Amino acid sequence: MTCGINNSRVLLAHGDGGLLSREMVRDIFLKYFNNPLLGQLSDAAVFRLKGEKVATTIDAFVVDPVFFPGGDIGKLAVCGTVNDLAVSGARPVYLNASFIIEEGLLLTDLEKIAAAMAEACVEAGVAIVAGDTKVVPRGHADKIFITTSGVGIVPDGLDLGYHRPEPGDVVIVNGSMGNHGLTVLTAREALGLEGALKSDCAPLNHTIFHLLSGCPGVKLMRDLTRGGLASAAKEIAESCGMDMLIKETAVPVDREVRGAAEMLGLDPFYLANEGKFLAVVTAGEADKALELLHESIYGRDAVIIGEVRAGRGSVYLQTALGGTKFLDLLAGAPLPRIC
Amino acid sequence: MTCGINNSRVLLAHGDGGLLSREMVRDIFLKYFNNPLLGQLSDAAVFRLKGEKVATTIDAFVVDPVFFPGGDIGKLAVCGTVNDLAVSGARPVYLNASFIIEEGLLLTDLEKIAAAMAEACVEAGVAIVAGDTKVVPRGHADKIFITTSGVGIVPDGLDLGYHRPEPGDVVIVNGSMGNHGLTVLTAREALGLEGALKSDCAPLNHTIFHLLSGCPGVKLMRDLTRGGLASAAKEIAESCGMDMLIKETAVPVDREVRGAAEMLGLDPFYLANEGKFLAVVTAGEADKALELLHESIYGRDAVIIGEVRAGRGSVYLQTALGGTKFLDLLAGAPLPRIC
Repeated sequence: MTCGINNSRVLLAHGDGGLLSREMVRDIFLKYFNNPLLGQLSDAAVFRLKGEKVATTIDAFVVDPVFFPGGDIGKLAVCGTVNDLAVSGARPVYLNASFIIEEGLLLTDLEKIAAAMAEACVEAGVAIVAGDTKVVPRGHADKIFITTSGVGIVPDGLDLGYHRPEPGDVVIVNGSMGNHGLTVLTAREALGLEGALKSDCAPLNHTIFHLLSGCPGVKLMRDLTRGGLASAAKEIAESCGMDMLIKETAVPVDREVRGAAEMLGLDPFYLANEGKFLAVVTAGEADKALELLHESIYGRDAVIIGEVRAGRGSVYLQTALGGTKFLDLLAGAPLPRIC
Repeated sequence: MTCGINNSRVLLAHGDGGLLSREMVRDIFLKYFNNPLLGQLSDAAVFRLKGEKVATTIDAFVVDPVFFPGGDIGKLAVCGTVNDLAVSGARPVYLNASFIIEEGLLLTDLEKIAAAMAEACVEAGVAIVAGDTKVVPRGHADKIFITTSGVGIVPDGLDLGYHRPEPGDVVIVNGSMGNHGLTVLTAREALGLEGALKSDCAPLNHTIFHLLSGCPGVKLMRDLTRGGLASAAKEIAESCGMDMLIKETAVPVDREVRGAAEMLGLDPFYLANEGKFLAVVTAGEADKALELLHESIYGRDAVIIGEVRAGRGSVYLQTALGGTKFLDLLAGAPLPRIC
């Protein structure tokens, strides 16, 4: 038996991308599906297919509400998979999409979702080549769940991964933190905070390839989805076996997000983003990386937020007041159905 | 607007693989995602990736109950995707798996499902290289839904497809019809008919590659899942622009399946299979094809059930009494959550 006692049940926290998620993946999925590719637990699996370096990834999207300011489940399903491939260094080529639909969904809503997917595909330059649709009786799903998988090509010679970062490398993010998570949460709970809040959901592949094309010093990238910046930073630090120092005041957080998060007792560093990524870049190329990002539509607000240090997998946050605190994986207070 | 009036809603029948499914795919998904690969609506999309012929497919599995005689949702999710690749002529290499779990699922059940997936992967010779897990609150899904996607390699020179069949080709199936659909249905409704009924869920790739390796006269294959033999035959006939004649007495149906289906008013030709496929083979190689299939674990009961004829897309069933009736797509009486 795994994960504690015999009659243990799956909790919402098993799906929040934090500690319990990691336990379930380790104790059940890695135990049975163990192989070197899955074991890397990266955003996409990269392998050789008859000589070509190919990346593949899959993600289920169960966001509630289905429509939210800045996007919908369809746009999210395309961008999420495109971004997983892009941060792995792959050029997304083909997507597959499968739909689990609750009986009773308005066909006009399904059409809106399909149109949003198509629009995101055009922007990202990918095609949906295989699909599947299942319908379950009313009350056995919640409106619509979409799973997308993708295949991309990794340019030969590109070497990204946890083995690359070294002390002194800089940590860059391409913009403000927490917009998606907070937008979905406030839309769902009808908190009346909507106003200026908007999801950052966007396909990052063109921005990332512009960066990679001119900056060979990029060593590692991660998209900052479920679990937010803090969880991604912690996972990177642990997987690299190095520490990461983040300067709290350097991390961009929009004023509306900061205000709403404070009211709700949420930390923007743990909130999901759907158009943000983190890059570890060799220090000598930091300026070049920023310059390239600033030229791109989704990189205009890119900034350096910290650096890699020798260590054993800790993430230190240098606070505004000059103190230091540890950032750890999310534990408790899950935010379900954010993506 | 599509699919009729503005306030139309998704019905269970939109998911049964019959007429309404086809309308939804055409009026919504093909409208927005249109591209030559998706437009083929085949079991897997086959494309060139830097010179290599690669196939990809995706399927959502929402079967209810999750555990049934002969398998479970995990085994089904692996076999379904392996089989979609195999009937496209691809050798399945890598699978991705995504899980949508209802809060409260027993972790022991999740572990049983993962173990069944792993076992099916070992038999099929594939690895799950990327995954994702989402948890939704109790009552917003039904226990567990699994989506698998897969990537396979199509040997160069292999040419399967709707353009190949010609009048005179024979139609072969690898065994009895309706076992999976009837087993799931009787298990779900606790009809007390279980007894000898068992799903035929199995990975067909080794059987299919044994066939292909010795029989270049195989022109087209289809797995006989949702919608059963009749729906697949009709789709093939229409897509080829030819007729198909099926001899009712030649189609194997197990005695238990025939009896239970009769009691329930169901037609085994429309019931889903999860370990059965149809092959169109040039007449001169029919004996060779049968010989190769009979050597394989999942081909022992293979038989010729009919032939391709000049025509315009009709499927004729030559009945036991000597009459002839048309087989059409399933319309009405949907059997939801069979796979």
